[in-house]
Amino acid sequence: MREVSKFTVVTEGTVTTPQGFQAGGLHCGLKKTTRNDLGAIVCEVPAVAAAVYTLNVFQAAPLKVTRESIASSGQRLRAIIVNSGNANACTGKQGEEDAYAMRAAAAEAFGVRPEEVAVASTGVIGELLPMDRVNAGIQGLPAVLTAGADGAEEFCQAILTTDLVKKEVCVKLNVNGREVSIAGAAKGSGMIHPNMATMLGFVTTDAVIKPEALQALLGMTTDATFNMITVDGDTSTNDMLLAMSSGLAGNEALTPEHPDWESFVAGFGYVCEFLAKAIARDGEGASRLVEVNVEGAVSDLSARAIAKTVIGSSLVKSAVFGADANWGRIIAAVGRAGEPVNPETVDISLGSIPVLTDSRPISFDEEEALAYLQGDTVVIHVHLHNGEGRATAWGCDLTYDYVRINAAYRT
Amino acid sequence: MREVSKFTVVTEGTVTTPQGFQAGGLHCGLKKTTRNDLGAIVCEVPAVAAAVYTLNVFQAAPLKVTRESIASSGQRLRAIIVNSGNANACTGKQGEEDAYAMRAAAAEAFGVRPEEVAVASTGVIGELLPMDRVNAGIQGLPAVLTAGADGAEEFCQAILTTDLVKKEVCVKLNVNGREVSIAGAAKGSGMIHPNMATMLGFVTTDAVIKPEALQALLGMTTDATFNMITVDGDTSTNDMLLAMSSGLAGNEALTPEHPDWESFVAGFGYVCEFLAKAIARDGEGASRLVEVNVEGAVSDLSARAIAKTVIGSSLVKSAVFGADANWGRIIAAVGRAGEPVNPETVDISLGSIPVLTDSRPISFDEEEALAYLQGDTVVIHVHLHNGEGRATAWGCDLTYDYVRINAAYRT
Repeated sequence: MREVSKFTVVTEGTVTTPQGFQAGGLHCGLKKTTRNDLGAIVCEVPAVAAAVYTLNVFQAAPLKVTRESIASSGQRLRAIIVNSGNANACTGKQGEEDAYAMRAAAAEAFGVRPEEVAVASTGVIGELLPMDRVNAGIQGLPAVLTAGADGAEEFCQAILTTDLVKKEVCVKLNVNGREVSIAGAAKGSGMIHPNMATMLGFVTTDAVIKPEALQALLGMTTDATFNMITVDGDTSTNDMLLAMSSGLAGNEALTPEHPDWESFVAGFGYVCEFLAKAIARDGEGASRLVEVNVEGAVSDLSARAIAKTVIGSSLVKSAVFGADANWGRIIAAVGRAGEPVNPETVDISLGSIPVLTDSRPISFDEEEALAYLQGDTVVIHVHLHNGEGRATAWGCDLTYDYVRINAAYRT
Repeated sequence: MREVSKFTVVTEGTVTTPQGFQAGGLHCGLKKTTRNDLGAIVCEVPAVAAAVYTLNVFQAAPLKVTRESIASSGQRLRAIIVNSGNANACTGKQGEEDAYAMRAAAAEAFGVRPEEVAVASTGVIGELLPMDRVNAGIQGLPAVLTAGADGAEEFCQAILTTDLVKKEVCVKLNVNGREVSIAGAAKGSGMIHPNMATMLGFVTTDAVIKPEALQALLGMTTDATFNMITVDGDTSTNDMLLAMSSGLAGNEALTPEHPDWESFVAGFGYVCEFLAKAIARDGEGASRLVEVNVEGAVSDLSARAIAKTVIGSSLVKSAVFGADANWGRIIAAVGRAGEPVNPETVDISLGSIPVLTDSRPISFDEEEALAYLQGDTVVIHVHLHNGEGRATAWGCDLTYDYVRINAAYRT
């Protein structure tokens, strides 16, 4: 087997680290606080673009507009305009007109064609955008765009809703001896149970890559990363993951046949997995990250279904919040996933502490389990001994704060 | 169309109201408190019996024993022995032996054959039953069995875990001019997302009914009642619904061809729906009952899937707890149910307050909505205008208390 070259995490990297990208954000009045609520990423050249969208029947207006842009521009984008505080979903014909108006205003402000602009929105469903504020905000964006870390920081802040922390990551690797960067930013943190895409995620890279290769890579990577997280089992109307590649690194165009393809896939996967885990860890009200590893399923798909059932169980999530080694709830979730499971051969461990072997309880040190479950990250290992399928899912615990946040979100 | 004769709700009725049944309960030491944790229903004649069980892969040992009893006795039962405080699930070979031992001890105590005894357990998963206490308790049961309301009361208390209130109901109707009673008792209240059966439910009747008719009726009714409730989306390992018919009313045997079949179906359905709703209302931590009515789906099955998705949404449940008229979460749940929905034709109302027409928001009085949502019961109507399918699901809100209860259940 050919050796896969390494990628390096760029500690201070941002979505503007890849060559050709600027970003920025500001407050235009969609959020009641003074936090940023409008942001943009702009590329100095037409970037190869790819996107995946929510499978919710009620897709928000911006998704329709973005899909149309990417289709009519030959899969090229120059800019992404994003607002938080209002999802522009279930807003009917006026909502669609507003999304097109956002696209047109951004195109004019950035000096690009409308079909080179993607639009994304996140926030409350069912309210019309105050377009006077949005338009005024867009006019102000060109002045705040920078290629430095400050513009990326403002952008990351602008896309957050109930998120507590920004989610950003960057890696570097060599392609044909050229340095290539891949960076990403994303936001959560409720209505998170992505199906083909997550809330909002943006990946930038300066690698030269064929459009169809980028789209295929994005879909494949999403299935193993963003589609493997859940906060509350609710799939949003606005989920969208967008990737833009400026090509300014000047490498030979990446395709699956390229000798450095696997390095690029690994780096791209790292970026997406990092963001997905960051969303899970910052899930509404979460006090810890939960990871569920399923091995020995009849297939990877089956392992994914089981891992997502366990990570989504309200009872498992409550037990993790209470640091309770309640493996009975884990096995009950495994058993209701609707996937082939041999009821006699399941092993479960919490971190490195085995609690179940061959579907039978084994005694463990409750103190040790308590200490482990009180940590920052809880890893649940499930081995089915029923095949070669494996998968990992990420989520968070269910806390009082989740209830508090969501009992009072709109009011 | 033939007129369906009426049934009457018997306000003070219990599982011992149908002729031939005795019940009782006591504390044998499985719960840490002094609440009852062991109970039985005994029939003076071999009752026609039917049962439905959880579809969870990890079925608890008592389900295996009960299935075997009903199969080997020609679908006849004389007694049901139930304990709470310990689910006897994931307890391996010893757990099976314990369930058989419970059956044998009950058979001896009640003077019936082992294959005429059903066994049910509910409580913590993965711990062995303290059989000395169980056996001692079973010895004490014959002395406390009565055909009066007191025995039924003790039985109802004995099957509860985190439930706050007992769930019991009784109806009367005429079959061939004979008075027939149908009664039921059930328990919730966490790990409630039944799939083919609910936690524990027991229906008694004195009607003469063919075994295959009772089994068919039980399955059909379960699909529209117990299988339409959810508390937390988690399907238990111990769900079981058992029906016993003593036949002492002396009517001509009920079958779908019997002229009073529809009356019996209506009364049987009322009993099951009453118990299902009682479990939903008393869901762990619940402050109000939520009912979701879906109309205009492409089929009843499709309507059921959509209703269950809405009733199970953590975001919808949190919004109901907060009395927040957040219909955006309702439509988002409708849209992710994976069922055919026309995104342009959905109406939603909260009680009698319309909030969405043709998938577009309509202005409503927030004060009126708040007052409605602060009530005891919240009904969400969803009309898809996409066919003739309809369904109703029941659940509860998601509260701080749900988290509190489940963060500390086992410890």
